[in-house]
Amino acid sequence: MTWSEWLAEEAAAREEAGLTRRLSPRPAVDPIIDLAGNDYLGLSRHPEVRQAAADAALTWGGGAGASRLVSGTLELHAELEAELADYLGQPSALVLSSGYAANLAVVTALADRTAHVVSDAHIHASLVDAARLSRARLTVTPHSDVEAVREALETSSGDRTLVLAESVYSVLGDAAPLTELAELCASYDALLVVDEAHGLGVHGPGLVTGAGLAGHPNVVVTATLSKSLGSQGGAVLGPARLREHLVNRARPFIFDTALAPAPTAAALAALRVLRARPGLSGTVHDRVRTLADALGVVAPDGAVLSIPMPSPQAAVAAQAAALAEGVRVGCFRPPSVPDGVSRLRVTASAGTAEPDWDRAVEVLVAVTKEHQ
Amino acid sequence: MTWSEWLAEEAAAREEAGLTRRLSPRPAVDPIIDLAGNDYLGLSRHPEVRQAAADAALTWGGGAGASRLVSGTLELHAELEAELADYLGQPSALVLSSGYAANLAVVTALADRTAHVVSDAHIHASLVDAARLSRARLTVTPHSDVEAVREALETSSGDRTLVLAESVYSVLGDAAPLTELAELCASYDALLVVDEAHGLGVHGPGLVTGAGLAGHPNVVVTATLSKSLGSQGGAVLGPARLREHLVNRARPFIFDTALAPAPTAAALAALRVLRARPGLSGTVHDRVRTLADALGVVAPDGAVLSIPMPSPQAAVAAQAAALAEGVRVGCFRPPSVPDGVSRLRVTASAGTAEPDWDRAVEVLVAVTKEHQ
Ligand SMILES: Cc1ncc(COP(=O)(O)O)c(C=O)c1O
Ligand SMILES: Cc1ncc(COP(=O)(O)O)c(C=O)c1O
Repeated sequence: MTWSEWLAEEAAAREEAGLTRRLSPRPAVDPIIDLAGNDYLGLSRHPEVRQAAADAALTWGGGAGASRLVSGTLELHAELEAELADYLGQPSALVLSSGYAANLAVVTALADRTAHVVSDAHIHASLVDAARLSRARLTVTPHSDVEAVREALETSSGDRTLVLAESVYSVLGDAAPLTELAELCASYDALLVVDEAHGLGVHGPGLVTGAGLAGHPNVVVTATLSKSLGSQGGAVLGPARLREHLVNRARPFIFDTALAPAPTAAALAALRVLRARPGLSGTVHDRVRTLADALGVVAPDGAVLSIPMPSPQAAVAAQAAALAEGVRVGCFRPPSVPDGVSRLRVTASAGTAEPDWDRAVEVLVAVTKEHQ
Repeated sequence: MTWSEWLAEEAAAREEAGLTRRLSPRPAVDPIIDLAGNDYLGLSRHPEVRQAAADAALTWGGGAGASRLVSGTLELHAELEAELADYLGQPSALVLSSGYAANLAVVTALADRTAHVVSDAHIHASLVDAARLSRARLTVTPHSDVEAVREALETSSGDRTLVLAESVYSVLGDAAPLTELAELCASYDALLVVDEAHGLGVHGPGLVTGAGLAGHPNVVVTATLSKSLGSQGGAVLGPARLREHLVNRARPFIFDTALAPAPTAAALAALRVLRARPGLSGTVHDRVRTLADALGVVAPDGAVLSIPMPSPQAAVAAQAAALAEGVRVGCFRPPSVPDGVSRLRVTASAGTAEPDWDRAVEVLVAVTKEHQ
């Protein structure tokens, strides 16, 4: 079979299974109310964030021009790293070009064939890929099952061991048992890597910091600048020694062009808005609760509400019905749901205008009722 | 050994070997003449590029707000993809958040355990990591050795096979035998993946297009927006079927936030400047030749001149001496040189002001003479 035959066959199989996904470009001013994205605090469109990004592009240019170790490190990166570390209460931060790259970097620079990676079953694709790329021995433990993590750690005497978790999980929106995991990691000298992609901002400086675990010798944080901070990029936060190690050893850091000036400045401005307006997180939680109550489902720990639907078809139909009413929500179907249950995925962002939000709640109550 | 002991031990070993690398942030207006970066055409700082990035940040916001398949695809991405495809003469383009991500995406979406990846020995770290992450069987062939590639292809009857090359290699700046490789791939139904990171812009639409291979059914191109296009991001160019396959299957595309508005617009503006001023590439080549002649070394096919030095110490000393004279150049030492020869790495960018360039040539002639 030739390459083009293979691609055609793959496409046909997707089409037959009704699984073909297509990109639909959106305009700058979108009449649709977007409850599908991850701009949890609406900071991507905050006037100070836009202006800071624009100013940085004018001052620094379109790109950083090189990788960080060559000549791509800007004073702007250093400033963002210092403020991120300060806000999260961490000794140091290292900024990378995406959250995906941050996860690849930390895992591959710390783990190799001689290491053991213990990964929660609900972990994000970027951490799954990171573990795979590291070639470490991998144990996948049932979701948020601390006893299973302990059992896995028992098997790794002598190995360097990483435990991978998210502070708030992307799909179900539930929080990890961080205190228990950190204690366990301390007693087995494992390193707990916590991805704060969905915790940072929605929970102020994140759940690791909230639990008093920032600076803990067995806890490292990764974050993305692309969700609550409304920009693009990623970061790793932890001991200064870890940062130095990543600078010298993490291939996804070393062999990648530095984050461009505009997104660097946007994230920095968003961080400053967030610090000046801690009430933003409260708005998110109020909205999540309002919506959960209206729908009769349990409120999540994050900004994203998962609404279980009776079937993949029902989920897709409800999503289409909401869109027809001007409301965009996400839709999770197998295989991208860890427990096989199809769901609508609704983001309660502080950035949605009040009347839009009220209208969206109304629409969602109606369409989910209709498709149960 | 605890994690912090391990990190300390690694740091001490690096220090002892004289291999510790540190980041030095640079200011927006830098008195140093930078010949170390990859802004080959100086487009990162072109007024139209800066302005386009600034306007996009003001219009669209700091970030794209979601992954491409959710609601992160902007009309701006579609516009950039259409113009990139048009310029390179390719049927379609897909933009990702970095060149690193583009390489991971194309290799992992096409190759799995049942595939065979044949990789040139000088290939970039991102393609090495991509091959590793794919778990395909890997054959590394001696640099630009077409016969060795043929022998490797002989061993892969029945497997889906990828051949990985760069159009212009990063370290030595030499061009790949693209026509021969494409012919070979066609006759064995292998797919040639050509990374145009250092070819695009420096050779107009790149060497694949230059060789008449754009649209060839056995050739796929990856590119970065972070070098000649002065921005950030990456792209994969090839058949529409391939693009659709990546959209549906490439995890580094699906599970990563879309490229932010400002860098997307910067790359698009840079592309337009490049098309309007094809002479920019000529400036680069003239400069490379001037410098090569002045130093008595062979001119490369790309924008980066490699100057062999007698020892790692001599390379580092020459680099420091140039910096003391206000000229920043790169330095390659083992293990990051494929043939063990330490080198200065000098970028002949069209963006360097004429008097700065003349001064830099003078400085480089003096310091390389002094440290031979
Ligand atoms: C938990 C988690 N980690 C990492 C990422 C990747 O971050 P980025 O989009 O900045 O690459 C995402 C989503 O995109 C995520 O949900
Ligand atoms: C050959 C090659 N491919 C890919 C990349 C990665 O591109 P990016 O920096 O956009 O991630 C680079 C350098 O950074 C490179 O030199």
